[in-house]
Parts: sequence; structure tokens; C-alpha cells
Amino acid sequence: MDLKDLENIEHKIEEREDFSGFKVSPIEVFFPKDEEEVERIVKFAYENSIPIVPWGSGSSLTGAVSCEGCIVIDLSKMNKILEINDVDWYVRVQPGVKLIDLYEAVEAKGLFFPPDPASFFLCTVGGATSEGSGGMRGVKYGPFREWVLALKVVMPNGNIVKLGEPLRKNRAGYDLIHLLVGSEGTLGIITEIWLRLIPLPKKKIFLVISYPESIKKAGEAIIELRKAKILPEFSEYLDADVVKSMNKNLNAQLKETDGGMLMISIEDDQLQDVISIVKEKGEYKVLEGEEAERIYSLRAQAAIAVKTENSGYFYAEDIVVPVSKLPEAIERLNELGKKYGTKFYIISHIGDGNLHPNILGKNKDEVEKLFKEVAKISIDLGGSVSGEHGIGVQKAEMMRVQLFKSNGPLVLDLMMGIKRLFDPKDIMNPGKYVERAYLAGTTAASFKDSSP
Amino acid sequence: MDLKDLENIEHKIEEREDFSGFKVSPIEVFFPKDEEEVERIVKFAYENSIPIVPWGSGSSLTGAVSCEGCIVIDLSKMNKILEINDVDWYVRVQPGVKLIDLYEAVEAKGLFFPPDPASFFLCTVGGATSEGSGGMRGVKYGPFREWVLALKVVMPNGNIVKLGEPLRKNRAGYDLIHLLVGSEGTLGIITEIWLRLIPLPKKKIFLVISYPESIKKAGEAIIELRKAKILPEFSEYLDADVVKSMNKNLNAQLKETDGGMLMISIEDDQLQDVISIVKEKGEYKVLEGEEAERIYSLRAQAAIAVKTENSGYFYAEDIVVPVSKLPEAIERLNELGKKYGTKFYIISHIGDGNLHPNILGKNKDEVEKLFKEVAKISIDLGGSVSGEHGIGVQKAEMMRVQLFKSNGPLVLDLMMGIKRLFDPKDIMNPGKYVERAYLAGTTAASFKDSSP
Repeated sequence: MDLKDLENIEHKIEEREDFSGFKVSPIEVFFPKDEEEVERIVKFAYENSIPIVPWGSGSSLTGAVSCEGCIVIDLSKMNKILEINDVDWYVRVQPGVKLIDLYEAVEAKGLFFPPDPASFFLCTVGGATSEGSGGMRGVKYGPFREWVLALKVVMPNGNIVKLGEPLRKNRAGYDLIHLLVGSEGTLGIITEIWLRLIPLPKKKIFLVISYPESIKKAGEAIIELRKAKILPEFSEYLDADVVKSMNKNLNAQLKETDGGMLMISIEDDQLQDVISIVKEKGEYKVLEGEEAERIYSLRAQAAIAVKTENSGYFYAEDIVVPVSKLPEAIERLNELGKKYGTKFYIISHIGDGNLHPNILGKNKDEVEKLFKEVAKISIDLGGSVSGEHGIGVQKAEMMRVQLFKSNGPLVLDLMMGIKRLFDPKDIMNPGKYVERAYLAGTTAASFKDSSP
Repeated sequence: MDLKDLENIEHKIEEREDFSGFKVSPIEVFFPKDEEEVERIVKFAYENSIPIVPWGSGSSLTGAVSCEGCIVIDLSKMNKILEINDVDWYVRVQPGVKLIDLYEAVEAKGLFFPPDPASFFLCTVGGATSEGSGGMRGVKYGPFREWVLALKVVMPNGNIVKLGEPLRKNRAGYDLIHLLVGSEGTLGIITEIWLRLIPLPKKKIFLVISYPESIKKAGEAIIELRKAKILPEFSEYLDADVVKSMNKNLNAQLKETDGGMLMISIEDDQLQDVISIVKEKGEYKVLEGEEAERIYSLRAQAAIAVKTENSGYFYAEDIVVPVSKLPEAIERLNELGKKYGTKFYIISHIGDGNLHPNILGKNKDEVEKLFKEVAKISIDLGGSVSGEHGIGVQKAEMMRVQLFKSNGPLVLDLMMGIKRLFDPKDIMNPGKYVERAYLAGTTAASFKDSSP
């Protein structure tokens, strides 16, 4: 087989960039229309040992789809919702379906798919599955991982497999499904996805907006909610500078205070319990209906507002710490800011300890240095360097530090063993994530660094 | 190191049997009191290439802990609840903790661990994690898999690793946690488990008991509930013979009818919706409080009642089919019963299609033959040969059939590759589950069959 055999698959040569500016310089971008075309491309790449990178919407924040000299498989033409099953409660889709289109389609049938990464208005189901994405509702409903029932995958050798069945209970063999979820395109190309659905909630939901004196007070409120056994739909925090940036760039019309804004979405029957906690932290108000919807949509665009305003380096941080460690994490972030004379833009899924203390800086070195110090805080507190954005190129070295400190060196050996087992020729999104973390101890310098 | 070095670890030589009569003839049973003792035993076994079988309460229904000439690591002395965190909402336990003791401990703190395999009154957390157990509440809350946050594991080479952190969101590397959950002791010995908790539900729950004309009508009711977007706490079905057996052996005082008994546990606000569906299928009544609790506890003992009554072979079946395929599955089971002049004792988590058409027979061959035909029904309908009991020795061959038909042969190769990666000397519960399914195509006859 040679490249001519792939000519009838739509293709072009095109430079790209992901959302955080990592470069993609492919030898060819293919736009397969179906699984059979994906299979042909992968077989060609396998035979010729050419790296492959799958592409959804390019909304990676970690360089997960960056490459040079690779074949990009752009899955945007495989965007069909194949089946919505209202008895078995699943939706079966192709990977290029936009998450926002999936929401609309299942809601029309009275069903609900909870995970809502902030990029839901453009990211694809394939991308979010490969990244094991989270989102605001993760605190109540969990991340993508908990919603994937089954997958079809074109393996690195071109073989097509199905992993699992659209069943929540299934004990037939080791769980390969959840190896693929969050594998960042390094183990195979996902070509079909079965996602679990639940009934669309009917209960009335309110949005409590609180203006705590400080982020520390916001963290304390979250701990009190936990102790009171209150589980919100979501609980988000935006710091004062983020609110200002949203007003300026999104015409958000949010109230500006020194302590930022805490948002707690809660069902009817626990509204008073939430109020009794937040009223001790500062002013508050209760929203519902359209105004609550407006704030929810605005929250998803917070990072865009911050990025729009700043021409320097923007590093989308994604640490997560146990909720009980929020005050300590916040304290250490404040100290770090003072030490470096900088301020983090915090856009946080604070309810599950996922802090997003985003870093803005004049140049790459400055930002990289700060990133490592931020990541170290999460590792020290028994957290993780990534809650939902993934690892890609950007966080591989700090993931290695985390695994060595918290889990034991053998864990990375096992992960690398899995990479070799699935992808013996190392063509599937190579040089990233687990492989990059593994090699960081030996030959990190040899990696081509495509970061901006 | 030789066996003498292990002398100060509590041990004895003891023949055992699992719940379905599979034999265990170990060279030694060790009762380690802590992780360090597990480590020493495993290192000894690794150096001397001796098979190891971990043991919780022996409630396996598939021969998952059967062996001859192995070392049994009985984890019953490692039974401490190490931490209940009421902010981070997790419980950290040793593997030998009984599930019923865990329930009690977390409920005392206002927290809730939903998974409830029918053996909860005696099974251990380690066993249920290794088996990826399900239960009645699985239909609403999912099986064990969805509740395991992190694990400590003594690997087959004696190395200790920690997998994950007690965080629901964590993207640091491939998901090895969920490879271990449901691995049936074939990848390592779990020595510590972090389980996710949620607030203890406060809503009033009712138990609707319905007496449908037939199991087919029960299946239809479940489909109607799904279409109406009603998600019960649990929905169980017991057939007429099971009810009779429970009255006889457990003094259950249940009403005996021709069509068996459907039990639907539902929150206050959807009670009327459930009633409007079940009333079309036959008589019904609504229970609450102590009487509802009594029925829930009885349900967990249904299999024991059936087993007590019958001196022949009892094969605990565990097929699962998509809910939409329940009528077809039931139809085919009825035909199968007619063909072989037998009756299945159906004790079913019917709400998630997990049917448990248990087989009673005069001898092993008769039961084995029927089992294969039952398993084939689930495979034909896009289901699985096991929903929650696991594979062990008993279901390995039919799991192979399922994977080949539904998933592609490469899937079993990948699973076997993982077994080899984790356990290169093949000492960790060898000859079962994935390995047995893999070898069933070539050298199945060489397996020592320890089934009753």
C-alpha cells in the first residue's frame, strides 16, 4: 500500500495549532468519512511507521495533538449521532459529534448526559473521551470516565476492536474501556462511542451566587458544605481578576468585589442549607431560570475572557487537591504569587478541589517555572497535576514526579508496558503523555518540543 | 528466602471450598496481619514460582479462588477501617473488612456506600473489589467499579504500588485502577482500598411489590419504566419457584402466585408513576419502613434458599442482556426450559437486565450443557455472560466465545498481554479468567479442573 491508495480519502496539507498554541505540522491531514477510511489510513501509517495524531476540535490545552511530520486524522466528518436508545438509556455516536449537539439530541428524548467540560460548545465527543474530560457537573456526576459504556477502536496495527457492550454491568474480561478513556490518542483511534444516559432531571434547581471576602473563605464554605453532606449540581469559583476580565471581554455584567464570586447550583430541597452556610461568608443572592442559565454559559467562557485580554503566555493550569486541603493549597498559592510578584487567574471547579490557578507571564521560561511550583503544591497535598485537561506534552514531566512520589516508580513502567503492548511500533500520538513521562527520566532532551 | 522465613506469619494447612463447591487444596494458608507480611509472602512465592490465591470470604460463585498446590493468602485479619473522611467523602479500608461493617461505619457518619452484592452480609471489600461486584442498587448507582478511587496493591513481584489518589478527577496516567477492579486476583493482591461515598439519602423510599402474570409481564413493566424515564433505587424479580423456596427455607411469608414477584424501590415523588405502570400487570401493594427492609434483606438470601432445598448441582447463572432485549431473552429461556424439561430458578436484578436464571440439575454434565446454552442467549442478544459474579474457572470458555463474537479476537490477546505484563511468572491466581479464556482455544484440556 502506498500514499496513492489513500488519495480518494479527503485530505489536505495544513498547519494547525491547539488552543494553547502548540504547533501541528503534519505531512497530511485526512478527513475520513467512515471507520473503513480510518482503518486504511492507520494500516498505511503502520506499514510505513508514520506517526498518527487523531484530531477532534483541537481544544487541547496541553499539546496533546501537537506534532511534526505526522499524519493528522481529523474526525470532523464522522459526526453522526447513530442511535439514541430510550430503553437501554445510551447514545451511540461517531467521534466527531460536538458535545453541544449531543446534549440537544438526547434532551429532546427526555434524557441527560451530565459531563460538561467548559469547551462543550465546540469540543467533540471523541476528544472528550480521549481526554477523560471533566467539567462543572463533575462534582455531582463524575467525569467522562464514569459515562463511557463501550467503544469501537482502530488499533495501531489497523485492526478494529469493540471494547465492552452498552451495559453498565459487564464482567467479561479486564477493563480495557477505561484504559482507552483518557489515553489521549496514544493507544488507538476511537471511532464509535456508547455513552450512558440518565433521565433529564425534573427538580427545580437554583443558583446561589455568593461574594466571599476571599478565595480562602470560598474554600471554607465548600468544606462546610461537605461536612453538612450537601452535594451541589456544581460549585464554581471565579476570582476578582477573572470577573473583571469577563465584564470587559464578554460584557458579563457581573458584580466586581475583592473576593471573587462563588456559584453553587442546588436543588430546591437543599437551598436553605446552602444559604445558611454562604451567608456567613459575605453577601449572596439566589438566581433561577434564564439568569441562572446565563451565568452557567458565561462560566464556560471564563478562560477565553482571560486569554483574550492578555497577549503574553497563558498556561491553563489544572491541579486538583482533596477538598479538605483547599485552604492549605490556597495559602500556598498566595505565597507563591507573592514570591514571584504575580497573580493567578483562578477559574475553579472548587467543589471537587480542581483549582485551575491559570498562569500569565511575559515569557515561556517564567511561566514554566511557575507551573512546576504550582504542580508541586498539588503533589505535596496528595492531589494530582491534572484533574481534567490531561497531560499531553505540557504536564508529562510533572506527572512523572507525581507518580514517583505518590504511587511508586513501577506504576510508570506498567503504563509504558501497556503503551508498548497496544502500540509496538510507537506510531500512535508518540512522544506524549505516558511515553513522554517515562522517557523524561532518561532522554527528555531528545524530545522535539513543539510548545509555543 | 525460604519457607522458614514466613513461619512467624500465622498459617495453617486447610482444605477449603468456595460457595459453589470449587475445591481449594493449598500447600499453606497464610493469614497476614499487615501489608508487610503480604509483601513477604508474595516475594517468597515469586522467587519460588509458587501460585498464590488471595482469599476474602470465599463467596465466589465461579471458582475464582479454587486451586491445587497454591499458597492461599487469607486476608481476614486485615480487617481495619482505616479512615472515614467526611470532607473528602471517602472511606479507606483494608481488604478483609466485611461489606456490612463498612455500611454501618459510614452510615454512622451520615455517608452512604451504595453497591450491595447479595453476599454483603459476609463478603469482604477486597473480594468485592477484585470481582467488580454489582448488587441490587447497581441499577441506580452502578457496580463497584464506579466507586473505587484508589488502591494499594502488592504486585506479583512483591513490589508495592499505589494506584490513583482519593480523587474523583485525576488524569495522571492510564487508568490502572480499573484494570485491577474486577481482575479477580490475577494481577496483584489488593491491600488497601479507597472507596467514594455520598451523603446518606434522606428522601422517603417506598417498596412497590407487584405480582405480574408472568416474568414476561415483569420484563415489559421494566421497559415501560425505562420509557417513562423512571430510575428506581432497585428493581428485582423472583420467580414463583424461588418465592416458594424462600417461604419454605427462610420462613419468608411471601405471597405465592404463578407469575412471581416484582420489587421496585422508588422515591416518594415517582411512586404514583410506578404504580400506574405495575397496576396494569397484576395485583400490587406498597410497603415502607420495616416491612420494606425485611423484604430487601430476604432478597439477598434468595439464592441460599434455593440452594438449601436442592441437593443436586446448582449453577449460579449471571447473564446480562440490554433491558430492551428482556422479552426476547425470557422467551428464549422458556423455550430452552421446555426443550430440556427443566425450570430455571430466576432471581433477577431485572432492572438492569441481569437475569440470574440459575440452573439446577442432576449432574455436572447436564448443568454445564444448559449453562452454555443460557450464556449463548446473552451473547446473541448483545449482552454478557457475566454481569457481576465474574468469570473465574466456570465462565472462561463462554467469555472467550463472547469476546470473539462481539469484540474481536485481538481483545483477548490484549488482555493476555496485560496479564503477562503484570505477572510475567504467572503466579497470581493462574489458570483462571483471562488466561483460561485465552488458553481455552489451544490447551484447555490441560487445565486441572477443580469444579465440583
